[in-house]
Amino acid sequence: MNPEAFQDHYKDEYSVCYGCGRLNSHGLQIKSYWDGDESVCSFTPEPHHTAIAGYVYGGLIASVIDCHGTGTAAAAAFRAAGRPMGTDPDFRFVTGSLHVDYLRPTPIDAPMELRGKVEEIKGRKVVVSVTLRSKGEICAQGKVVAVQLPDKLRRPGR
Amino acid sequence: MNPEAFQDHYKDEYSVCYGCGRLNSHGLQIKSYWDGDESVCSFTPEPHHTAIAGYVYGGLIASVIDCHGTGTAAAAAFRAAGRPMGTDPDFRFVTGSLHVDYLRPTPIDAPMELRGKVEEIKGRKVVVSVTLRSKGEICAQGKVVAVQLPDKLRRPGR
Repeated sequence: MNPEAFQDHYKDEYSVCYGCGRLNSHGLQIKSYWDGDESVCSFTPEPHHTAIAGYVYGGLIASVIDCHGTGTAAAAAFRAAGRPMGTDPDFRFVTGSLHVDYLRPTPIDAPMELRGKVEEIKGRKVVVSVTLRSKGEICAQGKVVAVQLPDKLRRPGR
Repeated sequence: MNPEAFQDHYKDEYSVCYGCGRLNSHGLQIKSYWDGDESVCSFTPEPHHTAIAGYVYGGLIASVIDCHGTGTAAAAAFRAAGRPMGTDPDFRFVTGSLHVDYLRPTPIDAPMELRGKVEEIKGRKVVVSVTLRSKGEICAQGKVVAVQLPDKLRRPGR
């Protein structure tokens, strides 16, 4: 049995993201987990996620790196606070900046395996580097600067 | 009447991209045009393209910046060569790297207006900066390093 994913602990009102929200039925619904000090996520592209025939389009790669990065940031913040994910007060991150280097074309007929590493936790900011492999080769390398959801974007009462 | 978009000139075999391919019926099918020396693209998010409720998820923003950037790169390469888009030999670009700064949340209930500027054309590389506005405010700033599609990824005979 899989343990619960980071995204399974997001509160309902923060679970509508197209990339990672379990309540977005149109979305990608990625799932991220700890593997020691690294975070892992496996995502299998759909046939229509093409760039040129046979390869994944860059926007999907950016999307999964982005959401795996913000998910890792939230999990890392809970870990640093010594609390289980989902306990209050909540940590939920949005993207401050995203960088992706596309190192080689990513095959569309295989799962993309992402591994995240927390590079820095400082105040409300967490920096996560993400490596994307497919068929054993590194296809893309990303960096996500995640920042805690500003209070003004939180729902009233939270 | 709109003029033809950059993407309308892509050859059929390079028109399957989820972000910009006119032959990808599941995709975003973005359209880019010249406006003087800048390239423009307007894209209206769907309700399910959410991050948190009311705002666009970062992966969509990255996707449209990416494809508007590579489209602008192709159009700029034809312009620099003094040839109309779609003439042979073809120029088709893929993404070498993508950077996005998310400056403020992007409302989901309005078109996103993108403007691209060619920063550099050097050999097979074109650098494009992209500004994304919604409701008159700059919400994101991107940079796309686009490189011509490597010959080994071209279809035989092209």
